[in-house]
Amino acid sequence: MSERKRDLKIQAIENGTVIDHIKAGEALNVLRILGISSAFRATVSFVMNASGARGKKDVVKIEGKELSVKELNRIALISPKATINIIRDFEVVQKNNVVLPSYVEGVVRCTNSNCISNSSEPIKSKFSVLQSEEEGVSLHCLYCEHVISEEIAENLL
Amino acid sequence: MSERKRDLKIQAIENGTVIDHIKAGEALNVLRILGISSAFRATVSFVMNASGARGKKDVVKIEGKELSVKELNRIALISPKATINIIRDFEVVQKNNVVLPSYVEGVVRCTNSNCISNSSEPIKSKFSVLQSEEEGVSLHCLYCEHVISEEIAENLL
Repeated sequence: MSERKRDLKIQAIENGTVIDHIKAGEALNVLRILGISSAFRATVSFVMNASGARGKKDVVKIEGKELSVKELNRIALISPKATINIIRDFEVVQKNNVVLPSYVEGVVRCTNSNCISNSSEPIKSKFSVLQSEEEGVSLHCLYCEHVISEEIAENLL
Repeated sequence: MSERKRDLKIQAIENGTVIDHIKAGEALNVLRILGISSAFRATVSFVMNASGARGKKDVVKIEGKELSVKELNRIALISPKATINIIRDFEVVQKNNVVLPSYVEGVVRCTNSNCISNSSEPIKSKFSVLQSEEEGVSLHCLYCEHVISEEIAENLL
């Protein structure tokens, strides 16, 4: 059987969410944000490093799931150009961009080990969120002024 | 745009490997076995819990990669009915079943914390591998006689 014919059968979703234009390589982190592990029972598909019109991207499709604001905010931090498509009866009925939050509390671990938010005190991390076209998203710790840009996905709480 | 039309574009691979009939839910563990993380640069796609003729299954497709014997043995342990399809120019040119090894050394951590293979001694774990139709794959430790069946993926070394 040809590869082209096989695809159609396994990939389309009837109802659920397609997260498109994910930054290339971040699809596995998106699954982690959504809590999708081996125990997840609905249909999930993804493609990493797909060739799109604007360069490489990742795409994640989840049958029967709509995303919470908390999940959307986390996806925006690691992939601010992602789009969220709601699918009903195989058609895209709604398409939205994720919105980068300007401030996040208790969402990312500060990578400065001496930051008070990493101490035994019951203090949640707090960051202001900035975005530049060249350098992408950066998080600025409101306690220690430490800046995180590359390692956001690895430090999500 | 309809979901059905979108699929075709992102999913087909030209050359590489399709791992089909993976036990439902195990696709993320297969990616882990293959060392595929955010840093991987080739195209990878997967579907989890897809409806197949023989019930739910997972499928993983990797552009431009052929699997090593070591990788195939590990996939067989967590999904003994998986098939390995080699794709060239969008066609399946070779289709094989994985073969369950009868013995594995240094591949899985014994879940008995008192097992000598978990001590500070330089001793590799050794298991004989058994398979039954009802209970699937089980590993029998040659040191402490402990049996592992459910948690193989989590204990791969």
